[in-house]
Amino acid sequence: MELAELVRLTFAEDLGPGDITTDSCVPTDAEGSGRIYAKQPLIVSGLLAAAECFRQQGVDLVAAVSDGDRVIPGQDVARISGGLQGILRAERPALNFLMRLSGIATHSALVVGAAEGKVRVVCTRKTTPLHRSLEKAAVRHGGGHNHRHGLYDGVMIKDNHIIAAGGITAAVRAARERVHHLVRIEVEVEDMEQLREALAVGADVILLDNMDDRGLAEAVAITGGRAQLEASGNMDAARIAALKDHGLDVISVGGLIHQARWVDLSLRLDP
Amino acid sequence: MELAELVRLTFAEDLGPGDITTDSCVPTDAEGSGRIYAKQPLIVSGLLAAAECFRQQGVDLVAAVSDGDRVIPGQDVARISGGLQGILRAERPALNFLMRLSGIATHSALVVGAAEGKVRVVCTRKTTPLHRSLEKAAVRHGGGHNHRHGLYDGVMIKDNHIIAAGGITAAVRAARERVHHLVRIEVEVEDMEQLREALAVGADVILLDNMDDRGLAEAVAITGGRAQLEASGNMDAARIAALKDHGLDVISVGGLIHQARWVDLSLRLDP
Amino acid sequence: MELAELVRLTFAEDLGPGDITTDSCVPTDAEGSGRIYAKQPLIVSGLLAAAECFRQQGVDLVAAVSDGDRVIPGQDVARISGGLQGILRAERPALNFLMRLSGIATHSALVVGAAEGKVRVVCTRKTTPLHRSLEKAAVRHGGGHNHRHGLYDGVMIKDNHIIAAGGITAAVRAARERVHHLVRIEVEVEDMEQLREALAVGADVILLDNMDDRGLAEAVAITGGRAQLEASGNMDAARIAALKDHGLDVISVGGLIHQARWVDLSLRLDP
Amino acid sequence: MELAELVRLTFAEDLGPGDITTDSCVPTDAEGSGRIYAKQPLIVSGLLAAAECFRQQGVDLVAAVSDGDRVIPGQDVARISGGLQGILRAERPALNFLMRLSGIATHSALVVGAAEGKVRVVCTRKTTPLHRSLEKAAVRHGGGHNHRHGLYDGVMIKDNHIIAAGGITAAVRAARERVHHLVRIEVEVEDMEQLREALAVGADVILLDNMDDRGLAEAVAITGGRAQLEASGNMDAARIAALKDHGLDVISVGGLIHQARWVDLSLRLDP
Amino acid sequence: MELAELVRLTFAEDLGPGDITTDSCVPTDAEGSGRIYAKQPLIVSGLLAAAECFRQQGVDLVAAVSDGDRVIPGQDVARISGGLQGILRAERPALNFLMRLSGIATHSALVVGAAEGKVRVVCTRKTTPLHRSLEKAAVRHGGGHNHRHGLYDGVMIKDNHIIAAGGITAAVRAARERVHHLVRIEVEVEDMEQLREALAVGADVILLDNMDDRGLAEAVAITGGRAQLEASGNMDAARIAALKDHGLDVISVGGLIHQARWVDLSLRLDP
Amino acid sequence: MELAELVRLTFAEDLGPGDITTDSCVPTDAEGSGRIYAKQPLIVSGLLAAAECFRQQGVDLVAAVSDGDRVIPGQDVARISGGLQGILRAERPALNFLMRLSGIATHSALVVGAAEGKVRVVCTRKTTPLHRSLEKAAVRHGGGHNHRHGLYDGVMIKDNHIIAAGGITAAVRAARERVHHLVRIEVEVEDMEQLREALAVGADVILLDNMDDRGLAEAVAITGGRAQLEASGNMDAARIAALKDHGLDVISVGGLIHQARWVDLSLRLDP
Repeated sequence: MELAELVRLTFAEDLGPGDITTDSCVPTDAEGSGRIYAKQPLIVSGLLAAAECFRQQGVDLVAAVSDGDRVIPGQDVARISGGLQGILRAERPALNFLMRLSGIATHSALVVGAAEGKVRVVCTRKTTPLHRSLEKAAVRHGGGHNHRHGLYDGVMIKDNHIIAAGGITAAVRAARERVHHLVRIEVEVEDMEQLREALAVGADVILLDNMDDRGLAEAVAITGGRAQLEASGNMDAARIAALKDHGLDVISVGGLIHQARWVDLSLRLDP
Repeated sequence: MELAELVRLTFAEDLGPGDITTDSCVPTDAEGSGRIYAKQPLIVSGLLAAAECFRQQGVDLVAAVSDGDRVIPGQDVARISGGLQGILRAERPALNFLMRLSGIATHSALVVGAAEGKVRVVCTRKTTPLHRSLEKAAVRHGGGHNHRHGLYDGVMIKDNHIIAAGGITAAVRAARERVHHLVRIEVEVEDMEQLREALAVGADVILLDNMDDRGLAEAVAITGGRAQLEASGNMDAARIAALKDHGLDVISVGGLIHQARWVDLSLRLDP
Repeated sequence: MELAELVRLTFAEDLGPGDITTDSCVPTDAEGSGRIYAKQPLIVSGLLAAAECFRQQGVDLVAAVSDGDRVIPGQDVARISGGLQGILRAERPALNFLMRLSGIATHSALVVGAAEGKVRVVCTRKTTPLHRSLEKAAVRHGGGHNHRHGLYDGVMIKDNHIIAAGGITAAVRAARERVHHLVRIEVEVEDMEQLREALAVGADVILLDNMDDRGLAEAVAITGGRAQLEASGNMDAARIAALKDHGLDVISVGGLIHQARWVDLSLRLDP
Repeated sequence: MELAELVRLTFAEDLGPGDITTDSCVPTDAEGSGRIYAKQPLIVSGLLAAAECFRQQGVDLVAAVSDGDRVIPGQDVARISGGLQGILRAERPALNFLMRLSGIATHSALVVGAAEGKVRVVCTRKTTPLHRSLEKAAVRHGGGHNHRHGLYDGVMIKDNHIIAAGGITAAVRAARERVHHLVRIEVEVEDMEQLREALAVGADVILLDNMDDRGLAEAVAITGGRAQLEASGNMDAARIAALKDHGLDVISVGGLIHQARWVDLSLRLDP
Repeated sequence: MELAELVRLTFAEDLGPGDITTDSCVPTDAEGSGRIYAKQPLIVSGLLAAAECFRQQGVDLVAAVSDGDRVIPGQDVARISGGLQGILRAERPALNFLMRLSGIATHSALVVGAAEGKVRVVCTRKTTPLHRSLEKAAVRHGGGHNHRHGLYDGVMIKDNHIIAAGGITAAVRAARERVHHLVRIEVEVEDMEQLREALAVGADVILLDNMDDRGLAEAVAITGGRAQLEASGNMDAARIAALKDHGLDVISVGGLIHQARWVDLSLRLDP
Repeated sequence: MELAELVRLTFAEDLGPGDITTDSCVPTDAEGSGRIYAKQPLIVSGLLAAAECFRQQGVDLVAAVSDGDRVIPGQDVARISGGLQGILRAERPALNFLMRLSGIATHSALVVGAAEGKVRVVCTRKTTPLHRSLEKAAVRHGGGHNHRHGLYDGVMIKDNHIIAAGGITAAVRAARERVHHLVRIEVEVEDMEQLREALAVGADVILLDNMDDRGLAEAVAITGGRAQLEASGNMDAARIAALKDHGLDVISVGGLIHQARWVDLSLRLDP
């Protein structure tokens, strides 16, 4: 869904048939201005969504920082100005986007930082329905990377696919015949035998799920650079720090998104 | 947005032009069945959304528990059966709903429990865009209550409304003239003078934002039952426990929703 | 539905794949201007919808009066100017909105006037599908008030709800537990026994449907101000005039909307 | 708009985020049945819309009569059965369709009857936005006929088109070149000179707007069967009765639809 | 579907969650300009669609020619200027519209030219789903005419309708009763007996499908101007040239659209 | 867009406010059955779309062959049965899908066959707006393969991207940083110098556009298997036959889709 449509639906949800408080109390021609500022240290994400909220209510937003910037408590994130009715209607939806997404960026930075740039840390498909693009951008704002966006832009062959296809070799060949040549094929393996079969059939990426350190090391040695290696399974900052030098290419962490909490931002109108 | 439409858009996001892995590897007539179970103690929420995900992929879901039930690690939440392609496509979206919403129910139960039923604990409009109905239901599954659903089903007169309207008295009168007689009018007050003005004009509910214990006690005494009293501002379980006997009617806590993390559930196919 | 979307669908209905007359006969660069005026005495409603019709066709509308204003035959309601093709396309849809809604405002004023401001006269959920917000606004333009907007912003417990819930007391308690604290609970009662039960359980509003004058007077006496009282059932101007001093809070009249006929307005292009 | 979509939006309007009364008071598994019956003499229209309302709430509707049938007070129009929650939710929207459309059919029958079948009486584009197909069907159920459905399925050249095109002859030729050969071209004329020009260029239908009886008679004589003749302008039953033998082909009457009021129908649940 | 919506969906199809190449490589503030030019002789169609593609990406398009103009290889069709990201995103969709539609216009001109203006050559309902309006316009740009737009703006009674209705006479009468008076009724006939029945009941247009030259000539003679005659069935330029003087009114040719191939246009950015 | 939605919009386009012929002439309870058969040799594609057309009109379609099957003139492709009104309404849209898509499959088979399986022949983004998924499937049914589906599931760095990014090396690095690890990066090169730079920075796929045979051979030699090589530019069967042994990995041909014409299929009702 495009951002403009997402925001339109957000207002449909919140406004319904009308903002009965503002309609009653605020003249249609009243103007106002104000600032959105951080109430805790955080990394900003969601400025485009917030700006779109205000835009759809006829209010201008001028960003004071960029997505991905680190701000301190009290620092301005944006200034807004326009009709007072529009400001009051856009305030909550805009902050809901900003607080959620900045929370994800801030949390991602913590986890990703443990890798010290030595291994690519990526998020997964564990995202909030209809917010995937925004959440994946928030991960990037926090210094992380993304995995495939959905089921259509990457092949990930898991255990049930392997069983249904009749083995890793058959599954990889079927996928290669079907998909276009700009898409890589990833296979999830459970042991070294499966790893060897995946390498033999030319899998491009191999997912090592829930392996211990020893298993990961063995997989790296067996692979010898013939495929990209991705590790996953209950990854947090500590485990990533421990694994960052193991020669893995990618570590995937659903928690970049789903273990993040909202951070605190506020809008204050100018007196 | 209706649930069916929300789920339809969720699949549009994840499937895009097609699930290229499953299309390649899994025969269209392969059947399967399996179970969704908890991997940690949690309170269930989101069964309707999960069921709708499977339904839209032609898969049956039979719930083993109800929304609001407390389950233990390993306990089944639902059983599913149907086409294997559909199961594999619905798995991630269904779990994304279940894990998020059960996370909110579980977290809400913790916070709400501190009130020991002596004061109504409610969530706010700090919700994830397009997920408000589901999140508010999750709060109820965790034992909490809801505040107004949006800007259309309750009047909440805040400081900027008061300024724009020319005072509390004018604002309340304007709202009463405009809104229907089944909607109550709530006014946010900052001090005892404002409280007295709100009471005098017949406000139905009064919001005491960020007041300390002493202020809250004074407000309760002044009000003397003439209006409902709601307290808000950085409320957590400890503060709620401390306030539960103060004579307040409602405590509102945005964190019921925005400080919750996903809990862990998994889908396992039958061998 | 937002007004812009309602108008968009209105053009989809009328234009379909194209206005074959105007496309054939009117150059795309022809300009024009004109006036919309009343052809009978009426109260104006629908200016926003009419303006949106012209706006979507690239034509400016400048209102000469406001919604709720009383105008006389021949008086201008608005002036329009812009592309001639757009004017010709917007004319019929814009007038369809204006004539319908002004008809409702005009009829409402007649009925509501009978109350002489001594009792609040409100419309009901008997509205034209997809036009509820506009029709309810037209009632307000005619001096009336609204009832709840839909099933979501007010509780109205009717006979079948009472039976299903197991009595008035159970129904009111169930509703109070479920709904938020800014929503009032209304109960429809058929006799004084039910009225007493509703009062005892603390119903906020009580609907007295199809009661005769004597019954209404008795209900007012019993209630003694402990709840708001609403009367309904075949109400017209005469009955309202007769009841206006009975001490009722609200009289609800579906006919404000569904017994209104269109009034006559016309668009004339400047020579 | 398809009927199913119209009804879906109707529920979106009325239900919003949920029917808080029924959700609170009526068990999800409660069943019920009932009848929809007339409370005054009327001609039925809108059964498909009413049935769709109930169908979308999981309730069966079995019609007892057909659209276009005349029914007497107390006569059943349909029986319904299914879940009680669904019945209570569909009741109001379904009746809103039935009462409006039966009102149009009933009013149309009155007006159309005056023609005694000697001239075709048709409605116009003065219809309620988004309800045109239903309202035009209601006119047919009342014995009337329709005019073009919109701007795309018939050419109607009015005074402003004539001016913009540079005369009747130029306008008719431009339209004939542009439109397909199954669409007739109608021209509105103001006097006998215009009538002669329209006949000379081969207009298929000629609209005589607001002419008196003498003018209409002269137009019929001049035309001599070379084109269809349509009269319009403040037509009611009396004028139609007076004109029915004048040799006109069509009389168009916007009031078939816009001067109709709702008729009274009710739903009663079985005890 | 309106053009703006068609183009919006076109971008949804091509852009999905984002243009990952341009997002990576092209600064958001880079500007550019360029030209769209023909790479072969062709007749232009689709300028409005192409302009809408660029408009939705914030890019201006200034047409150098008009739809229906014949251009030579190397000739400019339009110039564009604006943000480079927008240009790169709109390029392919805009050219897809232009190349397809200009292909239809160019092919139509070839076929229609064979008629030398002596008989109206029209396209049919064999069109690409969702592109009918654009394709029918392309036929007009190539000098052809259109048939009815869909099932709603013309009556076409075919063999199965005749059987279901119980004969030509019954079918024509049923249609005339049902449809409005600006719509003509066409009947498909297989032989001279059916032709005579259709003429007797007053069919407005008669379709002679797959008749040989002798049959067509006989039909023209029998009809004697009492109805319009349309011939169809495997028509190409040669057959049209042969039939152009036979006295037919219309020849319908699905191949104007479905036998056209795309022509070649290209966009070149200014250095 | 999902297929069901595409078909729904297709009916909206063709049916508009109603099929006035069938509504007039065919009883709602008339039943029928029939066959869809080929009128020329062809390869079938589009069965799912055709089946969805009939399904949405309440008609069953049972396929007699599969997409990708080669059929001879007179051979059945499917049988249909159900309500006669539904059959008559679905006939044209269903055949429009089948004839177009089978035309693409049939044409693709001709072109792809020239490669004798020695090089992968793929289509491009030159597709009909909103029909891309169906057209790409038709290419596969004809034995071809697909390129990326849109701008989101593959990186294709063209000349303007290279200029904007400041060179091939910078562009590839920027893309690799931004996109996920299952997406390959393709670079379009114009000469051997660019090829060497692309290889040096590790481009995964290299596009050789409009190179002659000698250039292609040189590129293959230089590359030495370090990247996939794709050739494009005015490719037809003859050129593909000539290039099939050159060691290229992929040849891309827009004409698989845009040079295809519809093939002929027909629906005949059973007597």
